[in-house]
Amino acid sequence: MTSPVRLALLGCGTVGSEVVRLLHEQSADLAARIGAPLEIAGIAVRRVGRDRGDLPVDPAIFTTDPLALIKREDVDVVVEVVGGIEPARSWLVEALRAGKSVVTANKALLAEDGASLHDAAAEGGADLYYEASVAGAIPLLRPLRESLHGDRINRVTGIVNGTTNFILSAMDATGAGFAEALEEATELGYAEADPTADVEGFDAAAKAAILASLAFHTRVTAADVHREGITEVTAADVASAKAMGCTIKLLCIAARGADAAGRETVSVRVHPAMIPLTHPLASVSDAFNAVFVEAEAAGQLMFYGRGAGGAPTASAVLGDVVAVARNRLAGARAASESAYADLAVRPMGEALTRYHISLDVADRPGVLEAVAGVFARHEVSIATVRQGPAGGGPAGRGDAELVIVTHVAPDAALAATVRELRGLEIVRSVASVLRVEGGA
Amino acid sequence: MTSPVRLALLGCGTVGSEVVRLLHEQSADLAARIGAPLEIAGIAVRRVGRDRGDLPVDPAIFTTDPLALIKREDVDVVVEVVGGIEPARSWLVEALRAGKSVVTANKALLAEDGASLHDAAAEGGADLYYEASVAGAIPLLRPLRESLHGDRINRVTGIVNGTTNFILSAMDATGAGFAEALEEATELGYAEADPTADVEGFDAAAKAAILASLAFHTRVTAADVHREGITEVTAADVASAKAMGCTIKLLCIAARGADAAGRETVSVRVHPAMIPLTHPLASVSDAFNAVFVEAEAAGQLMFYGRGAGGAPTASAVLGDVVAVARNRLAGARAASESAYADLAVRPMGEALTRYHISLDVADRPGVLEAVAGVFARHEVSIATVRQGPAGGGPAGRGDAELVIVTHVAPDAALAATVRELRGLEIVRSVASVLRVEGGA
Repeated sequence: MTSPVRLALLGCGTVGSEVVRLLHEQSADLAARIGAPLEIAGIAVRRVGRDRGDLPVDPAIFTTDPLALIKREDVDVVVEVVGGIEPARSWLVEALRAGKSVVTANKALLAEDGASLHDAAAEGGADLYYEASVAGAIPLLRPLRESLHGDRINRVTGIVNGTTNFILSAMDATGAGFAEALEEATELGYAEADPTADVEGFDAAAKAAILASLAFHTRVTAADVHREGITEVTAADVASAKAMGCTIKLLCIAARGADAAGRETVSVRVHPAMIPLTHPLASVSDAFNAVFVEAEAAGQLMFYGRGAGGAPTASAVLGDVVAVARNRLAGARAASESAYADLAVRPMGEALTRYHISLDVADRPGVLEAVAGVFARHEVSIATVRQGPAGGGPAGRGDAELVIVTHVAPDAALAATVRELRGLEIVRSVASVLRVEGGA
Repeated sequence: MTSPVRLALLGCGTVGSEVVRLLHEQSADLAARIGAPLEIAGIAVRRVGRDRGDLPVDPAIFTTDPLALIKREDVDVVVEVVGGIEPARSWLVEALRAGKSVVTANKALLAEDGASLHDAAAEGGADLYYEASVAGAIPLLRPLRESLHGDRINRVTGIVNGTTNFILSAMDATGAGFAEALEEATELGYAEADPTADVEGFDAAAKAAILASLAFHTRVTAADVHREGITEVTAADVASAKAMGCTIKLLCIAARGADAAGRETVSVRVHPAMIPLTHPLASVSDAFNAVFVEAEAAGQLMFYGRGAGGAPTASAVLGDVVAVARNRLAGARAASESAYADLAVRPMGEALTRYHISLDVADRPGVLEAVAGVFARHEVSIATVRQGPAGGGPAGRGDAELVIVTHVAPDAALAATVRELRGLEIVRSVASVLRVEGGA
């Protein structure tokens, strides 16, 4: 058999140790699939002495010097599962420039500065694979960067954060508020002690940037992504969604559009939205992830699976390791970054969205006329209006509820409409404002 | 820009003409993604003179001599959308041996004799891609043959035939019988004039062989696949499934197992089965396709989309064309066939399945004892029994209904149990026998 392909593993936490375990358990299969055995040349960690249970490797291969490990002549492939921007970026740029292929699960780095990695890969003629960075084990990036390259993708809509999906599923199932559902998620281990990255949408925004870059052949960074988390979603919002035959999901959306001059653009955003229960994404519950792709010729596609966890993420990492190892043996290189389209990223205000607005209003003649006038002034077209007693209960306090769903309009016009509604004397309060996606 | 990659297109029916149209419409994008323009060198058809509407190609490139076209020195890639075993096999073997990469949508050929194509590809050092052969536009084969190569797949369960799924969805929605639902499907264009390949499961069996080969690194042919169609599924079966909280789907199932000596095996089968409504495949309705994959580390994954139609299939073909064109420019070759595991294919009788059996029995003491005795003799363990008046209506004619769901047992033992039940004097009739999948 051919001489082994040798890996440097950077990081040995949940995912890293799972990678080591799988490499060991499946070594014969992996060798047969690649045409050469895989070997771990070294593992860079912060502390060498730490107890790592019964990890099936020689303790002597641990090191605290990742750069020295990367530079070793006998290292062919660098696998990074440390996360964060620095020092991971410096390590990977170093590796790629030296012609060593890189497999990484680092979504934050790819979303913040994928360009540095892609440029370094081009410079060194090395492969850069990162399937595990989005939606864990779900094979998603390879289909986007390869299978659908003969097609034109119009829109990608995803549930790509398991923590928030677990919280929203719990709110939907039990009627609980956000704080209560977050507490449950934390207790069950679905949310971290500091849940900010998840609940404020940072994690989803990073993944949105990566998906948009691949789908639209355009460099999109996390800073280009409009981001709203789920901390403001209330039990009342969830009830409103139910009354509409919808459920609330934290969606990442990357959509093709056009600017005023007719030039193609792309808009990328993360925010909670109502989607109809009939939409394939509506039934994706708990910690599962799914990504819904709409392409010109292929039509609607959906990819579903576990988006996080040591084993699923390690599966995605190893799939990439097999690919780069094969390329290495074949003296080949995978298709490099495709960013030729270089579309302008449109600001959120220009993105076309639909709003569901629930108002507590004074119960007297002329209210609907006044409210409708606000929408008209902002050139927002109303799709449906439902009037009823306030809070769904019996009227009497002189209040009524007005539920309005709009047609598609620029997000800025919709936001301005809501601002003006808040200032109307007849509007007691704006009970709920949510975007509506998925053709409800 | 680099000199063009030149294609020979074999066949110009629904899929072929859609390939031509997409190649034309997206030529600039495709060229940017590949790094070289794509050109159609020639199109082989049966009759040159036929009116092909406004197909955007020079009529002079049509030919009735596919072999001469394939052999032309300026042809780099052969795209086959003719279908059938011969002459497609001879053409593709010729092309591959000559080092020309092949993209094909021909599931029948791959399932019948994929070995000849893979061997020819190895001989000629050419690429063989066939994403469009299973589940149309759904990127499925590339994930199986690449993304999941670091993992161990245990089971693949798919709805891979749109016609039968449309028919079963209609039966479920309206309570119609098979014949009536088939008629509707034919009228709406979802079933062909001769629906045999679909309703008897031949089409699904071909796809099952292809999926099993990729998932288990083993050559599996259509002849290895146990096949039952949906023609015997009755309205009563559909009603029984509903009463169980299930729906009936024509499933293709490829599962890892072990023989008596503990050696790993694989079983591959296509048959209608009840699955619980909570299973992700249950909500795949009408002409949609979906494939559910269970892997050791990745866990549960599902791929969903349109499985047929000119545009979706052409999307998959073009994705492959982009891949082989890129490989060509890079002087590289994709991973070749992986059949190293070479697992034995287990006969259906040894496959582990569960049965749902509905019996009309005499309403008298000792019936359950007698029936239970039959199961015990065949070493089939019963999971649940429900007794009620016959046909769900009021009793009185001295008949009762007995609904039995078994635990998992070898299919042969289950079939023998049913045969013996049919012979029992107290069993008036076996109203419905269906396998149960998906952990109901």
